[in-house]
Amino acid sequence: MKIIFIGAGNVATHLSLALQQAGHEILQVYSRTEVSASELALKLNVPFTNDFKQISDKAELYIYAVSDSAIADLASKSLADDALHVHTAGSVSVDVFEGKKQRYGVLYPMQTFSKNMTVRIAEIPFFVEGSELLVVDTLKSLTLTISNQCFELNSEQRTKIHLSAVFCCNFVNYLYHVAYQLVNENGLPFEVMIPLIEETANKIKNFNPWDAQTGPAKRNDIAVMEKHLNLLNSRPQLQQLYNQLSQMIVNEYLHKS
Amino acid sequence: MKIIFIGAGNVATHLSLALQQAGHEILQVYSRTEVSASELALKLNVPFTNDFKQISDKAELYIYAVSDSAIADLASKSLADDALHVHTAGSVSVDVFEGKKQRYGVLYPMQTFSKNMTVRIAEIPFFVEGSELLVVDTLKSLTLTISNQCFELNSEQRTKIHLSAVFCCNFVNYLYHVAYQLVNENGLPFEVMIPLIEETANKIKNFNPWDAQTGPAKRNDIAVMEKHLNLLNSRPQLQQLYNQLSQMIVNEYLHKS
Repeated sequence: MKIIFIGAGNVATHLSLALQQAGHEILQVYSRTEVSASELALKLNVPFTNDFKQISDKAELYIYAVSDSAIADLASKSLADDALHVHTAGSVSVDVFEGKKQRYGVLYPMQTFSKNMTVRIAEIPFFVEGSELLVVDTLKSLTLTISNQCFELNSEQRTKIHLSAVFCCNFVNYLYHVAYQLVNENGLPFEVMIPLIEETANKIKNFNPWDAQTGPAKRNDIAVMEKHLNLLNSRPQLQQLYNQLSQMIVNEYLHKS
Repeated sequence: MKIIFIGAGNVATHLSLALQQAGHEILQVYSRTEVSASELALKLNVPFTNDFKQISDKAELYIYAVSDSAIADLASKSLADDALHVHTAGSVSVDVFEGKKQRYGVLYPMQTFSKNMTVRIAEIPFFVEGSELLVVDTLKSLTLTISNQCFELNSEQRTKIHLSAVFCCNFVNYLYHVAYQLVNENGLPFEVMIPLIEETANKIKNFNPWDAQTGPAKRNDIAVMEKHLNLLNSRPQLQQLYNQLSQMIVNEYLHKS
């Protein structure tokens, strides 16, 4: 397909490179920040612009890979009425395009993208939605040229999947950050935690998380939990977080196991 | 070394098998539960007992790999006064042996063990402590026959490392469990989350967690956070957890970046 990217951030970068490699033609990159636009355009060896009016109307597909709050505004601007317009956001409804474009949809790749880190895009699950059946089919076909996993979800389901991703990516990473600080205070390198972090992530390929649970809260080991809470005395917020997570685990395992 | 295991759970199983494979002689396994004792003894091809008085006094090292609350009681019982006695608990002070044994210590392997899952023990960090310098040296030498990473920590430092492990293993696994439920409610298999979980764990080998953070809370994206909180309306505890973790992330990134 002939594709133009609106946005040049992490998602746009990984997605456009994968699509180009799969044989699709990226015609142009737009970003309101010239540096970002030119950086991605250079990687793709295509033209760029930071002037919305200069975006070519020759593409079949416009992919809005921009911050959630920017989508509505960009969608309102006049651009290529006959083309298909999609955004890549987990928690923005497909309705953001309603009344503004004729054919539109969503192409949400569920992954945590960083600019300078390679990602095996073939393993990323994509979630698609369309204003009509044909759009869904088009987006499925497109996705399957770069990934092995594509699911159709409506906007509410996609928001729920995004919420799941927040729990097991964003919040998990924050817990790594908490551990990072505690380990450093002990004068140890954070690397000592890596085997445990890897094993925890690996385990759930063979067990479901319920069966994989270990630790003082699962055992309702009050003595250990009190020691840990005491160590957090100078950090009331972390103490509260420890307490809340522990209580949730205690309650689930006391009542259900 | 000639070693006897007091306890036959997950830690005892993985540790005894690794030590035996490294050439140490496991003389016997004790567990108050006969089935557990015999199960592990069978794997090691050694005798077992569920009668504490029948534990041989011929070992150089007794490893108490039992639940935290059981250590003090077992340590009080008379057994092999000349030998070295160690426990494997993250958050139990070495003082649990004080006045009960002459030479004692701690050998804490930081990993999440499940009985039927192999673990690459060579990559597990061990944290040791001893009642005297010679004990520390003995435990370091012993550990380095099965693992590449051994650190000396006092009891307070070890509790802090254990606390870090609770954050990036036990609590992380609980967040996986939360996501598991949300994904299942969407009629999707939990497997769709695996690439994201793997990438999140992988990322921190190259970035520190602070730099790896992504998501709505980092961006202080109030619209998305409100959508997510609405989806959790019927689950006040999860809603509170989402809110608390998000606020902690928002605060850190607003004030420091």
